[in-house]
Amino acid sequence: MDIFNPVDHPHRRYNPLTDQWVLVSPHRAKRPWQGQQETLNEEPKPHHDPNCYLCPGNKRVTGDINPNYTGTYVFTNDFAALMEDTPNSANSNDPLFQIQSAKGTSRVICFSPDHSKTLPELDLPAIETVIKTWINQQQELGKHYPWVQIFENKGSAMGCSNPHPHGQVWANSFIPNEIAREDSNMRNYFQKYGRNLLVDYVEKELTNQERIVVETQHWLAVVPFWAIWPFETLLLPKTHVARLTILNQEEQKDLAIALKKLTCRYDNLFNCSFPYSMGWHGAPFVAGNSDYWQVHAHFYPPLLRSATIKKFMVGYEMFAEVQRDLTPEQAAERLRNVSDEHYKDEKD
Amino acid sequence: MDIFNPVDHPHRRYNPLTDQWVLVSPHRAKRPWQGQQETLNEEPKPHHDPNCYLCPGNKRVTGDINPNYTGTYVFTNDFAALMEDTPNSANSNDPLFQIQSAKGTSRVICFSPDHSKTLPELDLPAIETVIKTWINQQQELGKHYPWVQIFENKGSAMGCSNPHPHGQVWANSFIPNEIAREDSNMRNYFQKYGRNLLVDYVEKELTNQERIVVETQHWLAVVPFWAIWPFETLLLPKTHVARLTILNQEEQKDLAIALKKLTCRYDNLFNCSFPYSMGWHGAPFVAGNSDYWQVHAHFYPPLLRSATIKKFMVGYEMFAEVQRDLTPEQAAERLRNVSDEHYKDEKD
Ligand SMILES: O=P(O)(O)O[C@H]1O[C@H](CO)[C@@H](O)[C@H](O)[C@H]1O
Ligand SMILES: O=P(O)(O)O[C@H]1O[C@H](CO)[C@@H](O)[C@H](O)[C@H]1O
Repeated sequence: MDIFNPVDHPHRRYNPLTDQWVLVSPHRAKRPWQGQQETLNEEPKPHHDPNCYLCPGNKRVTGDINPNYTGTYVFTNDFAALMEDTPNSANSNDPLFQIQSAKGTSRVICFSPDHSKTLPELDLPAIETVIKTWINQQQELGKHYPWVQIFENKGSAMGCSNPHPHGQVWANSFIPNEIAREDSNMRNYFQKYGRNLLVDYVEKELTNQERIVVETQHWLAVVPFWAIWPFETLLLPKTHVARLTILNQEEQKDLAIALKKLTCRYDNLFNCSFPYSMGWHGAPFVAGNSDYWQVHAHFYPPLLRSATIKKFMVGYEMFAEVQRDLTPEQAAERLRNVSDEHYKDEKD
Repeated sequence: MDIFNPVDHPHRRYNPLTDQWVLVSPHRAKRPWQGQQETLNEEPKPHHDPNCYLCPGNKRVTGDINPNYTGTYVFTNDFAALMEDTPNSANSNDPLFQIQSAKGTSRVICFSPDHSKTLPELDLPAIETVIKTWINQQQELGKHYPWVQIFENKGSAMGCSNPHPHGQVWANSFIPNEIAREDSNMRNYFQKYGRNLLVDYVEKELTNQERIVVETQHWLAVVPFWAIWPFETLLLPKTHVARLTILNQEEQKDLAIALKKLTCRYDNLFNCSFPYSMGWHGAPFVAGNSDYWQVHAHFYPPLLRSATIKKFMVGYEMFAEVQRDLTPEQAAERLRNVSDEHYKDEKD
């Protein structure tokens, strides 16, 4: 009988951050695809688009006019999913009909006045400004809310409705599901082993090397051992840092380098503006020890085979278990095999 | 100050089956949409398509020829995600790098020889044949595997690569994430209250009426109190039944009626072939008491505003918590307000 090997044989891997498994079917990427394809729009965009509601000087649906900003620009979402003054709801005693009122705010963060650029195409000082803006937002909103979610939806495949480079920040009066889950798993690990889960993980990835995509002085991006999305990555500091707001100048500058390299590799994989959702997780803004937390960003890109064919998380994935079609090691190798300088720059 | 009311105020609801919350932002559906639209293909399809690898008598990629089947037809997926004879993997002692070999099989279930039809357009005897096939597959595969996932991905928006009416069945040597979670939550409820979680839930929905979409003699479909997808439904028997394989003739016949009515309402909502993923959950095929289990099907349809605009589960949803843009009660009302006879039949 054959000996098990993860490149040929279906297997499950365990995600210690979420306490969930993923089914890995390494040979499945070979099947032919006759399904839906994404539409690619690689036409050059103008530096300023008069119809874009995020460009400097333009009018938004509310009638508000954007200032002539030069760096980043933050404003409250005109159709926010959360309100600051939701009244409290009554308590329900029925375990099957539990309801909680939710307070919070949703803001939009324009990364740059230049409509034509995306994160990997910004220069390092501009990316540093984005990082500073994330930190400022967390500092301000973290005073009032236990959770401040920073994220970016990039590309129409990820539900992004405007190509202007931008992300979002949503503040919450509650600890959302995903954070509650990571928090309890990191806490349990710390209680059991007296060590930080993700700091241990970084050390092992640095030794093993197989899943590394980008390494800078202070930061590491890997396709995690338990990745769900085909080219998913986890970006985190190489030593212990609980949240973004305590990064020093040098770590911030180095993060800009890591972000640029990682997103350039993404764009270079299929020579397209690579869609993804990315989001930051760090210690919630609550009292207490946060030694068990390690700040990190998740990148969840949907593409699987090409610039137009994505992975569908449907059917079996929704009802049973998430399934991937190539190994994380194979994905890391493919991302390492492309340049960390943007393909558009190379053409110049 | 305002009094909290769930139609105007953002709130969270608790899903007792998964132990997760969902953020409900009832006013968000009003925001304008400039993002991606699905392509609609409502051209009539032929009853037999010579290029379809699921039609009777046609050749598949493997060279196999489909029989001239007249009811349903089941075969092993030519690119199965699972294999029956995966070798066992060695145990890993590192909590951060856990791996398990996975055994199983993936089969395709053609619902009908007629390429032009979808589930809601089949007549009741044909839908009964589909139900019988599901039951036979569970009976056969349940002898060898603890979990047998039956599901259907319908429409290209749900990653379905062939419009021929079909579903799938994947058997697993392990209990997948979603099942493990529902199992433990239903078991805990049973231990705490001495009652079946979903049977209790059905009784309360029958009294409340607000979230009911379809009710037949034995079956109920509701937009659950904790629904994630805009028009998500939960279909389940009105009295205790642990798995599909123990449904009697009458319950099977009545399930065909419920399935037809529910999927017709879906198609009638936006006058299109309504995409969804649907999947069955029931007591796993393991020894022991299954009194705490209640068989049920989840329907997860992606559409939000129209036949071409879907809900994107991205960014905040991926990193923090799933968020919906209308209340489950509003969704149920809209599904009740359309006919339960198919719009194409009405035209005849
Ligand atoms: O097997 P199919 O229909 O080609 O593929 C579809 O369903 C599978 C099971 O839900 C998913 O893993 C695939 O991503 C999806 O495209
Ligand atoms: O706010 P946007 O970018 O218009 O909307 C996008 O991001 C939100 C937050 O992740 C999601 O709830 C929406 O489904 C998505 O389309």
